[in-house]
Amino acid sequence: MTETTDTSPGWLSRTEIEDARGRLPIVYVNAVPVRVDDSGAVTSVGLLLGVAPDETISRSLVSGRVLYHERIRDALLRHLEKDLGPVALPHVPASPQPFTVAEYFPTPGITPFHDPRQHAVSLAYVVPVTGDCRPRQDALDLVWFSPEEAAGDSVQQEMSGGQGVLLRQALAHAGLVP
Amino acid sequence: MTETTDTSPGWLSRTEIEDARGRLPIVYVNAVPVRVDDSGAVTSVGLLLGVAPDETISRSLVSGRVLYHERIRDALLRHLEKDLGPVALPHVPASPQPFTVAEYFPTPGITPFHDPRQHAVSLAYVVPVTGDCRPRQDALDLVWFSPEEAAGDSVQQEMSGGQGVLLRQALAHAGLVP
Amino acid sequence: MTETTDTSPGWLSRTEIEDARGRLPIVYVNAVPVRVDDSGAVTSVGLLLGVAPDETISRSLVSGRVLYHERIRDALLRHLEKDLGPVALPHVPASPQPFTVAEYFPTPGITPFHDPRQHAVSLAYVVPVTGDCRPRQDALDLVWFSPEEAAGDSVQQEMSGGQGVLLRQALAHAGLVP
Amino acid sequence: MTETTDTSPGWLSRTEIEDARGRLPIVYVNAVPVRVDDSGAVTSVGLLLGVAPDETISRSLVSGRVLYHERIRDALLRHLEKDLGPVALPHVPASPQPFTVAEYFPTPGITPFHDPRQHAVSLAYVVPVTGDCRPRQDALDLVWFSPEEAAGDSVQQEMSGGQGVLLRQALAHAGLVP
Repeated sequence: MTETTDTSPGWLSRTEIEDARGRLPIVYVNAVPVRVDDSGAVTSVGLLLGVAPDETISRSLVSGRVLYHERIRDALLRHLEKDLGPVALPHVPASPQPFTVAEYFPTPGITPFHDPRQHAVSLAYVVPVTGDCRPRQDALDLVWFSPEEAAGDSVQQEMSGGQGVLLRQALAHAGLVP
Repeated sequence: MTETTDTSPGWLSRTEIEDARGRLPIVYVNAVPVRVDDSGAVTSVGLLLGVAPDETISRSLVSGRVLYHERIRDALLRHLEKDLGPVALPHVPASPQPFTVAEYFPTPGITPFHDPRQHAVSLAYVVPVTGDCRPRQDALDLVWFSPEEAAGDSVQQEMSGGQGVLLRQALAHAGLVP
Repeated sequence: MTETTDTSPGWLSRTEIEDARGRLPIVYVNAVPVRVDDSGAVTSVGLLLGVAPDETISRSLVSGRVLYHERIRDALLRHLEKDLGPVALPHVPASPQPFTVAEYFPTPGITPFHDPRQHAVSLAYVVPVTGDCRPRQDALDLVWFSPEEAAGDSVQQEMSGGQGVLLRQALAHAGLVP
Repeated sequence: MTETTDTSPGWLSRTEIEDARGRLPIVYVNAVPVRVDDSGAVTSVGLLLGVAPDETISRSLVSGRVLYHERIRDALLRHLEKDLGPVALPHVPASPQPFTVAEYFPTPGITPFHDPRQHAVSLAYVVPVTGDCRPRQDALDLVWFSPEEAAGDSVQQEMSGGQGVLLRQALAHAGLVP
C-alpha cells in the first residue's frame, strides 16, 4: 500500500510496529477524497502525488493506520487532515459501513491488493471534501481528476499496491464508470 | 406511507396517478434527515410533525415520488427542499446505494411497510443537513430528536405505515442502537 | 436495457405498459448471476447471449420488471428462473440493499445507463447460483466468463445500454478488478 | 465481546496476543448465522448458548480473530466451522462489504460495543447456513430464534458487550424489524 509516512504519535514505537506488522493483521483506513456537486454526485477525485525513490511519479489515496483506542471515523479525520491540511472540511459518512474492505497482503496475488511491509485490513470510504486542500507534509501534492481521468490508464499506471483498483471500486460505488 | 402531499408538477394528472397506483409499483424515495458532528457521527434525527384527521400527532420521514425522467438524487433534493425549506443544505450521499429498500404494499403484513393507496418501492437514504430547516408547507413542523428518543416507544407510536421501522433501520445503518 | 421479453402475466396489457413507460419511472431488477467457491468468492459470471436484428452478438444481465404487488426478491426469482431455468438454484441475498441502483433513462448521457423505451429504476444484485442453468426462452444461451474476461473489452463491447458498466460495478462490489 | 475461546493455531503465543491486545486494534469478524427461505428472506437466527461463570445464560454471535495472512472470508469460514461444526454449509457473501463495522472498545460507552480485553474492530456479516449445525466445542449449543424473538427483550438481555445491538443491526440490514 503506497502510504504516506505515519508520523502521528501512537502507542507503539517504530520497532514494535515493525514487529507487530509481521505477526498480526493491522487495521487501516483508506479514504477517496472527492468533490461533489449540489446533488451529491461526484465531479472529481483527489489523488496524492509523490515521487518514488527511482524518481517516477506515484499517486495514492489517503491511507493510514487506526490507532489503539481510536474510532475509525477519528482515524479517517486524522489521516485526511494529515494529507489534505486542516481546512479541507471532509464529510466522513454517517454510516460505518465501508464501500469495501481492501485486504493488502505481503504476498502478491491473493487479493488485488499488496503491501510488502504488512498484512493490512483496510476499511475504504468515499469522503466528500468541501474546503481548501493544502497538503502539508512530505512534499506531497493533491491533484484533482475527473472520474474519467481517474479510471484511465495514465492515472492507473501511476498507482501501486492495488490502489488503482480500489479507486475504480470507489468510482463504481459512486455510480460512475469504473 | 405517511407522505406529505406532492404538489410538485409531474407528467401525470392526479387521476392518472391514482390509476397507475393501482396497477404498477411506484418509485419512491425516503430520506432520514440527520445532524452530524465533525466526525460525521449522527447526533440527532429530524422528523416531520403532522396532525392526522383524528387530531392525533403523526411523525414522518421525508418521502415522495420519483418523477418521469428525474434522477433519484434530484428527487431526494426536491422532496428535502419541499419539506425542510430552501436553505436546509442537504448532503445527498455520493453513492446511489440506498441503506435499504422499503417495499410499501397496499396489503399489510407482507413486509413491515404498508401504504393503503399504492405499492411503493422506496429507496431509503440517511441525509445529513447542515443548514437551517424551515418547513414551509402543509403546516408541517420539523422536530429534532436524539437517536435514543427516535428509537424510543413514544416516537415510534407516532409513526405509521412502518416508517418507525425504517427510522430504526436507518439508525442501525448509522451504527447506532436501533 | 437489453432485456429478454417479459412474458410473465402482469396486471397491465402491453398497450397499457407502453403508455405507463412514457410517463412514470418503471421499477426493475437486474441480477448478475455468479458462481462462487466454498469461501463465497466469485469465480465466474454468467451472461445471457442473444443475437441482435443486425446479427451481431449481444450479451446481457438478467433483468425485468417488478410487477404490482410483487416483492423485489420474488421478481428476482421469477426473472432468474425465466432466464436460467427452473433448477438454477439462485441464492437471492438476505438483505434488500442492492449493490447499486441503475437509472436507465430514455435520453442517453444522463447516467451511464440508457433504455430508449423507458425510464427504468433498476435495483441491482449479485446472485450466486449453485444449480444447473438451462436457459429456456427466446433461444438465449448462458455463457460463463472468468471475472477478468467479463471486465475485458471483448465482452464489454457486446453489452449495450450500460449493462457492461453495471457488470463492472458488480465485479467491484464483489472485491474484484472492475 | 463474548467470544468463544479461539483455539485455532495462530502466529502468536497467548502471551504475545495479550500484549498486542493492549496496544493495537485487533481485526475481528462477527457472523450472524441465519436460515433463509427459497426467496432468500431470513426466517430464523442462530445464537450460540453459553453459561457464564455466575451460571447465568449467555448468548452470542459467531466471532473471532482474523489471523496474520488470512483472508476475511477464510476467517469467517474457520470461525463458523469452529462454532457450527463441519457440515453447517455456510454461504459467505460474495461481497467483502460488511453490513457494519462493530468497534469494541475496552472503555464502555464510546460505541455501543465493549470488550474489556481489547480494542477489536469487527467486520460483521449475515451468513445463511443451509446444512446441519452441530456445535462441537466448549459445550456450546446453537439455538434458532425467529427474527421477532431475536430482537425481543428476553434474548437481548442474555447478550453482552453490545452483541444484542449488533444482532438487531443485522436484522435491520436484512429488512426486518430490528
